[in-house]
Amino acid sequence: MLNVDPPYYAVIFSSVLKKPSEEYLTMANKMEELAKRQPGFLGIESARQEVGISVSYWESLEAIKNWKFIPEHMLAQEQGKDLFYKSYSVKICKVEKAYHFPL
Amino acid sequence: MLNVDPPYYAVIFSSVLKKPSEEYLTMANKMEELAKRQPGFLGIESARQEVGISVSYWESLEAIKNWKFIPEHMLAQEQGKDLFYKSYSVKICKVEKAYHFPL
Repeated sequence: MLNVDPPYYAVIFSSVLKKPSEEYLTMANKMEELAKRQPGFLGIESARQEVGISVSYWESLEAIKNWKFIPEHMLAQEQGKDLFYKSYSVKICKVEKAYHFPL
Repeated sequence: MLNVDPPYYAVIFSSVLKKPSEEYLTMANKMEELAKRQPGFLGIESARQEVGISVSYWESLEAIKNWKFIPEHMLAQEQGKDLFYKSYSVKICKVEKAYHFPL
């Protein structure tokens, strides 16, 4: 649960793998750890079945753009397209309201 | 992949179960089928590991509000709190940009 009130931003990354692999998991975990160290990072939630969904939360659109262009992340994006993902979608969102149970 | 261009809206529902159960799966599947029949529904993506993440996409905030108050859905929300969920978050978002691989 995020300890910030909206508005903030979310990146919804949903993906289908060519096939599961150790290499993919290593890359994905590394990118998650790297994202957590970026300015403006607020949190991340991930789950995978047929589709993988990772939602990362950010203070601003600028923080998201800065993360997009971190060199290690750019390399991972290229590897993702070449090696790992059959398909993916990235959606950049403004979180307008949030509520939680329990409060 | 959604065949609509932003802006549209997303509901990010992330949840932790008390414990997995057939009853929960039945309820969750039923709600997904019901959501798909609502006006303004655009699509849904779901995955579950420790955390479950379901992202549903909608044409408008009004469509989201209408879905929230469908009687069967209200009953499921109550059952969710009473029986199934240890915790959950709902985030209402405006999708401002979306891109896809492959194009």
